[in-house]
Amino acid sequence: MSDNLNQLKARFNQTIRLSEAARLLSWDQQTYMPSAAAAGRAEQAATISQIAHELSVSDEMCRLLERCEADLRGQPDDSDDVRMLQVIRRQYDLNTKLPATLMAEVARHQAIAHACWQRARAANDFSALAPALEKMFDLARQGAEYLGYSDHIYDALIDIYEPGMKYADVAAMFSEIKPRLTRLVYAIAASKVSVDDSLLRGSFPVDQQKSLTQTLVGALGYDLARGRIDEAAHPFCSSSGREDVRITTRYNPELLPQGLYASIHEAGHAMYEQGSPAKFEGTALAGAASTGFHESQSRLWENLVGRSRAFCQFIYPFLVERFPGSFASGGEELLYRAVNRVTPTMIRVEADEVTYNLHVLIRFELESEMLAGTLNVSDLPDAWNSRMESYLGITPSNDAEGVLQDVHWSGGLIGYFPTYTIGNLLSGQLWHAIGNALPNLPEQISRGEFAPLLEWLRVNVHQYGQKYRTAELIEMTTGEPLSAHYFVDYLTAKYSEIYRL
Amino acid sequence: MSDNLNQLKARFNQTIRLSEAARLLSWDQQTYMPSAAAAGRAEQAATISQIAHELSVSDEMCRLLERCEADLRGQPDDSDDVRMLQVIRRQYDLNTKLPATLMAEVARHQAIAHACWQRARAANDFSALAPALEKMFDLARQGAEYLGYSDHIYDALIDIYEPGMKYADVAAMFSEIKPRLTRLVYAIAASKVSVDDSLLRGSFPVDQQKSLTQTLVGALGYDLARGRIDEAAHPFCSSSGREDVRITTRYNPELLPQGLYASIHEAGHAMYEQGSPAKFEGTALAGAASTGFHESQSRLWENLVGRSRAFCQFIYPFLVERFPGSFASGGEELLYRAVNRVTPTMIRVEADEVTYNLHVLIRFELESEMLAGTLNVSDLPDAWNSRMESYLGITPSNDAEGVLQDVHWSGGLIGYFPTYTIGNLLSGQLWHAIGNALPNLPEQISRGEFAPLLEWLRVNVHQYGQKYRTAELIEMTTGEPLSAHYFVDYLTAKYSEIYRL
Repeated sequence: MSDNLNQLKARFNQTIRLSEAARLLSWDQQTYMPSAAAAGRAEQAATISQIAHELSVSDEMCRLLERCEADLRGQPDDSDDVRMLQVIRRQYDLNTKLPATLMAEVARHQAIAHACWQRARAANDFSALAPALEKMFDLARQGAEYLGYSDHIYDALIDIYEPGMKYADVAAMFSEIKPRLTRLVYAIAASKVSVDDSLLRGSFPVDQQKSLTQTLVGALGYDLARGRIDEAAHPFCSSSGREDVRITTRYNPELLPQGLYASIHEAGHAMYEQGSPAKFEGTALAGAASTGFHESQSRLWENLVGRSRAFCQFIYPFLVERFPGSFASGGEELLYRAVNRVTPTMIRVEADEVTYNLHVLIRFELESEMLAGTLNVSDLPDAWNSRMESYLGITPSNDAEGVLQDVHWSGGLIGYFPTYTIGNLLSGQLWHAIGNALPNLPEQISRGEFAPLLEWLRVNVHQYGQKYRTAELIEMTTGEPLSAHYFVDYLTAKYSEIYRL
Repeated sequence: MSDNLNQLKARFNQTIRLSEAARLLSWDQQTYMPSAAAAGRAEQAATISQIAHELSVSDEMCRLLERCEADLRGQPDDSDDVRMLQVIRRQYDLNTKLPATLMAEVARHQAIAHACWQRARAANDFSALAPALEKMFDLARQGAEYLGYSDHIYDALIDIYEPGMKYADVAAMFSEIKPRLTRLVYAIAASKVSVDDSLLRGSFPVDQQKSLTQTLVGALGYDLARGRIDEAAHPFCSSSGREDVRITTRYNPELLPQGLYASIHEAGHAMYEQGSPAKFEGTALAGAASTGFHESQSRLWENLVGRSRAFCQFIYPFLVERFPGSFASGGEELLYRAVNRVTPTMIRVEADEVTYNLHVLIRFELESEMLAGTLNVSDLPDAWNSRMESYLGITPSNDAEGVLQDVHWSGGLIGYFPTYTIGNLLSGQLWHAIGNALPNLPEQISRGEFAPLLEWLRVNVHQYGQKYRTAELIEMTTGEPLSAHYFVDYLTAKYSEIYRL
């Protein structure tokens, strides 16, 4: 290995270790930090972030990067070193293309816009957010111009979260799933079958839920010697390296699925991070292929595993044991139906598998139109409501349960929403391949044997860390490019049976 | 304020914020970190420490420091800016005088020597530590030469923890207390009064101890909105800024004083950190005057408050309420005597108020002789044992309960031990001044009114942060230089009454 490459790796490693420390600080802020400590924590985080940024855009980093690119010219494109260099180059470009003044303005405006969003949502008053949102989209447009794109301004932004993905890819994907999903939603609404989920409501003592979660995510394969579970207002997974991958969850003592599925979801993220190979630790290749691929893992465990009939058979005895007031033996099938009830609702984060991606579609359409200048911020609430009506058959009664529900746009996350749906589509395509590779998977799941599934994910996805991008990795893993139909096929088959369509 | 000074403050602030982050990482490591994460955590800590070091010794830091010293020439010596500059200069000198190669060798050898110490203690075999200890003292000697000193090599090392303190000061202090303490120990041993502490042993459920601790340290004045209490193998206080000062403690379900007094001790440290003034936050003047002054606060709360008759009267009803199996009403005086039982023991950290500083004396004598070359490492166990016999009247039956008990020397902490005794002496002198200022303090304490005491400490000690050094601060606060007799007078009066001497 060239001396330049060793030096580059050592320098990049510093930025990684700083990021790991920053994530621990953030985890602490959301779990155990004293309430008065927020201002000091912001200073600590800002200092670490600024130093990491300075290191990552330093002349030395640039010089080493160029030398390594020269050194590695002619090496196989698939070698770890070449791929590592590509990841470092990509991050260097992302960090250097945006002027510091713009980044500072975005950071300042994020704080302002977030406060406006909180006020607007509390007062159910979109006009309190509109000017800040206008400016945020304006800043996003400026950023996109600096980052550059060839076809659509949206390309520059989605590329941040999904390297290589373009507006046209996302639009094509949604145009494939939109009619089929809408049709499915309407068919379910028209079905005479009604699904009763009342057994999921009742009294579920938090201590019992905690011990269930611990047992359950451990059984799935989340290694608690390299992780831990805490409570937080918003469930999340935080990795400070493959040996320290923590999740948080939130328990509702009257509604079982909330903590249960949040825990499985976050454990799915965590198992991906824990599966990042030891040989990549501390390098640019550690971690996950993309935001969407991360979501594919969480959603696969949460939905394709966690809402399967086999999983309900596995988990049912635990529920009977812990919540005898709610569950009596023999109710596996009732549970399966209850956790798969489909009802169009106003709120994305509470949506079922079928309607979820229509929520995402609406956001994608609106944010891309606003970026392109074909939709004005002032027209956003109406546009939101009319699409809710059109795709889901329901209309928000106010903006708080409509356009004001998500934190993303006011936080500057523009071009991010599609990663949720990319994650779902990937999970469907992976699930299809897994079904072929592991024909006995349902039986295994019903017996609580998750090791074969996790091993498949380790070998086919996790072991590659960040080495491959989404498009390349899904093709390597499943033998074909990302395709939306597997996921929609899965939904159609599953819900046609449940709702006798 | 000069532009140079602003720049210097901003640069120094970066190192402070990095240290705060590093302390949070260390707190996490000792409380909640997954067991497998130690290696990654070491990398994160090393990266932060290295970057903080590079920032602190940078040419820019040196240039700004020199310019500010020129700018501030002629300013009043007592101004915040002048004092701040002195603290920064001192840290810059400490950071630059030691060559990087020596620091790296010390860091490497710390890990080795610590492992040797663990093996030696477990096997009760001093020879397994001796070579590593020899080298550690050799490295300390080298460091002392680089740091420089005029009179005694020990001066260079104690100055790290107690700025301005010298070997002669410490020796004088110990030569004053040694005969009086030894006499007191022997007199107590000869006393016909025996103190029964059996009521402190029994069954003390940890949950009850936790809630007691929470109530108690809150009552003392430890602000839990700016702190928190967790459990750890070794109790400690960790500050990441005045708004985030955490303590840990350790509960023994069969021995009440362990968790109780560890909690009060750490809360004493924590209240000092929380009392660092807001105007110094993020600057070189935030924090505490010295290691010894820090210890004065923890020991004052733990012993002069926590083992006083008034405190026993205050706490007794809480004990009756929480541990009715052990405490019945009317036992305040029994409790007072029990928590003040004096027995020479082998282990420093378990020692009572009277014998404690004789333990420290032994370590000071031995480490200063080894540094000066008048004692060989191979002769250390015998020297240890003979002094234990001479000062405390007991002889360790093996090296594990003798010379191998402390982690300090193998960890490179040489010249540190006297800070424990300096802390005790300071606490005695402060207590005398407090007694004059707050004549009703015992009555207040017995009613749980700790605010007047804390306010006195805030005004006379805490508000100065790092602005004054030990010698200057104790003179400002009490009107006279550090003097050992207050502490020994306090002990003599207290224990003469208890043991009817």
